Amino acid sequence: MSALSDLLAFQRQTEALSSVAERLGWDQETVMPRGAAEQRAEEMGAMEEVLHERRTDPRIGEWLDAAQPQTPAERRAIQLITRDFQRTSRVPARLAAELARLTSLSQGIWAEARAKDAPEDFLPTLDQVLMLKREEAAAIADGGDLYDALLEDYEPGMTGARIGSLFDSMRPRLVALRENILGAEQQPQALSGHFPQETQLRLARTCATAFGYDWTRGRIDLAVHPFSSGRWQDSRITTRVVETDPFNCLYSTIHEVGHSSYELGIDPDYAFTPLGRGVSMGVHESQSRIYENQMGRGRAFSGWLFTRMAEAFDGLNITDPEAFYATVNRVTSGYIRTESDEVQYNLHIMLRFDLERDLISGRLDTTDLVEAWNARFLKDFGVAVDRPANGVLQDVHWSVGLFGYFPTYALGNVYAGVLNQTLRSAVPDLDGALAEGDATPATEWLRENLQRHGGLLPPAQLIETAAGRSVSPEPLLDYLEEKFGRIYDL
Amino acid sequence: MSALSDLLAFQRQTEALSSVAERLGWDQETVMPRGAAEQRAEEMGAMEEVLHERRTDPRIGEWLDAAQPQTPAERRAIQLITRDFQRTSRVPARLAAELARLTSLSQGIWAEARAKDAPEDFLPTLDQVLMLKREEAAAIADGGDLYDALLEDYEPGMTGARIGSLFDSMRPRLVALRENILGAEQQPQALSGHFPQETQLRLARTCATAFGYDWTRGRIDLAVHPFSSGRWQDSRITTRVVETDPFNCLYSTIHEVGHSSYELGIDPDYAFTPLGRGVSMGVHESQSRIYENQMGRGRAFSGWLFTRMAEAFDGLNITDPEAFYATVNRVTSGYIRTESDEVQYNLHIMLRFDLERDLISGRLDTTDLVEAWNARFLKDFGVAVDRPANGVLQDVHWSVGLFGYFPTYALGNVYAGVLNQTLRSAVPDLDGALAEGDATPATEWLRENLQRHGGLLPPAQLIETAAGRSVSPEPLLDYLEEKFGRIYDL
Repeated sequence: MSALSDLLAFQRQTEALSSVAERLGWDQETVMPRGAAEQRAEEMGAMEEVLHERRTDPRIGEWLDAAQPQTPAERRAIQLITRDFQRTSRVPARLAAELARLTSLSQGIWAEARAKDAPEDFLPTLDQVLMLKREEAAAIADGGDLYDALLEDYEPGMTGARIGSLFDSMRPRLVALRENILGAEQQPQALSGHFPQETQLRLARTCATAFGYDWTRGRIDLAVHPFSSGRWQDSRITTRVVETDPFNCLYSTIHEVGHSSYELGIDPDYAFTPLGRGVSMGVHESQSRIYENQMGRGRAFSGWLFTRMAEAFDGLNITDPEAFYATVNRVTSGYIRTESDEVQYNLHIMLRFDLERDLISGRLDTTDLVEAWNARFLKDFGVAVDRPANGVLQDVHWSVGLFGYFPTYALGNVYAGVLNQTLRSAVPDLDGALAEGDATPATEWLRENLQRHGGLLPPAQLIETAAGRSVSPEPLLDYLEEKFGRIYDL
Repeated sequence: MSALSDLLAFQRQTEALSSVAERLGWDQETVMPRGAAEQRAEEMGAMEEVLHERRTDPRIGEWLDAAQPQTPAERRAIQLITRDFQRTSRVPARLAAELARLTSLSQGIWAEARAKDAPEDFLPTLDQVLMLKREEAAAIADGGDLYDALLEDYEPGMTGARIGSLFDSMRPRLVALRENILGAEQQPQALSGHFPQETQLRLARTCATAFGYDWTRGRIDLAVHPFSSGRWQDSRITTRVVETDPFNCLYSTIHEVGHSSYELGIDPDYAFTPLGRGVSMGVHESQSRIYENQMGRGRAFSGWLFTRMAEAFDGLNITDPEAFYATVNRVTSGYIRTESDEVQYNLHIMLRFDLERDLISGRLDTTDLVEAWNARFLKDFGVAVDRPANGVLQDVHWSVGLFGYFPTYALGNVYAGVLNQTLRSAVPDLDGALAEGDATPATEWLRENLQRHGGLLPPAQLIETAAGRSVSPEPLLDYLEEKFGRIYDL
């Protein structure tokens, strides 16, 4: 056996074990009896310990030194294994354990502070999390930029500086669009009524099928937060039901189908290798967003959905497809990121990105965070935050140390914009198919041009290869201005 | 850290990992997408390899040598760990791998041979399995009896000789009872009709609740074969539905509730230790059988069930509870063990036990197996086997190397008979509660006197402690003769 094949065999088993650990997470969120929490924590802990031991196994270093990769896939696998091995090895075990302990506590402290609308109960803990994250970043960065070191976990190869100038170039057009929309004379009607759970779930299945979800390799269940879990032959999605708002269930289903389709679309030869998973959070989000927004919230698909929903719910308070299309894309003033629309969502992200970058660099102190958040929100959204739970306390991410994660949501939107432009030229009659509730021409194009490559190409290169053009924010901004300009008659 | 605490900490993690592997099996049989088989095999294989490495870790030997247990629980834990470590270490890795490979193949060969009713397609493979099992038994037995060495995996401390004389002493009374029943003038009516799946499942939940199944630590799902999976805070059951035969679903549910209740009833202090699981297959079966038969098929509970079923299915073809009680306990001539009744079931087991003991010792050759099976069946059951699929090919066990497993089913019945006698004296008005669909007084007695002890006491000692009398077949035989004597007016 060569060092390379030893390494890949070892890696294969690690991937299989990590897939087991991920499925344990799915089980916990969907089917686990509610009295099993302590036992599950012990089981998860045991799996994590086995995985950590394997990821820091000194033989990996020896194999990497001796490996002689021949093919592009082998070279890329070596590159990815090297990156992970170095990152894991550079973080002292003591620090990793401290971070795990603190973030499991701080999530609870955050949740309580949010419930009590009391940021002062959470900020001292956030300070401790930040100290440890800076220490972790410094260990990984090895002299480089701290924020970039953290970003590498979610969007490898990207830098804070590049995202910063990308976002800065987008903000004025988004702020202007937002203001024009909210100032428009005609505002779309809201959907109202009672929409029973069973019917919503049946429609969610229909939507998933329309977007090509492979039911032989997936399933849908209810969970508190919608997510997608797993890869290769088994990628499951969850959804949730709010009986006054069926869009919540239906569009989160389409969103998660996008994530799962990416994982299920990867070349099966890459299964159980480092190439066998989505290459970055940004690229992942590009898939979920292009399914949900550019296709799912488009006029063609929403027309088809209008008919299905009117049938299923015995009529709606919106009675024609054009008005329904506007309803699906309704923009309203609000504080919460996860309830946001295509236009305002990116502004939410930019706010968080700038603040977290400053927190990590030390330019911003947690004692000034509430004020900074509120000032920035007023500037970009034109309204004052009414209470901390609707402001700085709304997201879980920082409490669990996820610094560098937020920007990938907006990057995903930018990638989706770029991909959508090429997709629409490559499949000129896509809207004809979507109007029939059939996304196949698009999902085939995405699979062929992007999804199947898994981790073979770095994120930006993958998007550029698939789209045949460089990554820039214009396609997304043009698309948004065009779409919402028509809906709101701007 | 002392050697003992090191060992127990290591063991704790192994138990947690093995619980994860078991849940992966549950997932596969219940919720796994059907296209995920290959991936699942790889995941299971990775878990098994991690577990095997831990179970043969040489540090276990060192810790065992140095450990100084103080309490009875610690002494018993050391005993159980020693037994498992010795057994695992004595089987050469080469042999374990060969057995795993062969039995995964031979199960498929058996299934095909059964479908084609062609024992000659399976027997050569069974011969190979037997050779490896004998080799394995010899490695473990270290000069002792081969069959006893295999039995130790399922019923520790029991010997083939003791089971042999136990079974021999039971057979004449069972054969006679069987003949009297089938010759009786009045035969109970069969239940007939169409019983929709949803209603059966709703009733199954009601039955599980009646027997005290803890839904905060369990759940019920559909699977091809009913089983119980998991322990501590998470023991799930499955059932199946045949729409012409609701007893299949309801009584297999009660049976599995018995298994799960045992695991859920173990003292929580034993969780993640070798004491934290059912002590033997026989004791396990005693719990499932006493729930299913002595209580579930008793007159009191069946009366309650009659009312529930008549309500749920809008009337039955059986119209009074006494006739219904006879129907629930109906004995008919048949070839198949799993479709058998309380009386004939044990005869099925005795036949298999004698044959498999002879196969392992070499007294019986596989080329004579069909003839031996058929001759014995004719003798004990009074009918000739019509075809091999209804005879020697009916059970999966031998194809996957489970020699020594069969007798524990009948041992479980014997244990249940002994326990039932004491239970009825300890809880004189149990039938009053069962007639109301409430098994609480019995489940509390079983938990207090047996289930909570987990692996603390060896099987026979546990039954004797719980029952306050020695293990003998008379209580079971007396109970059967009394019960069926009345039903069939013998």
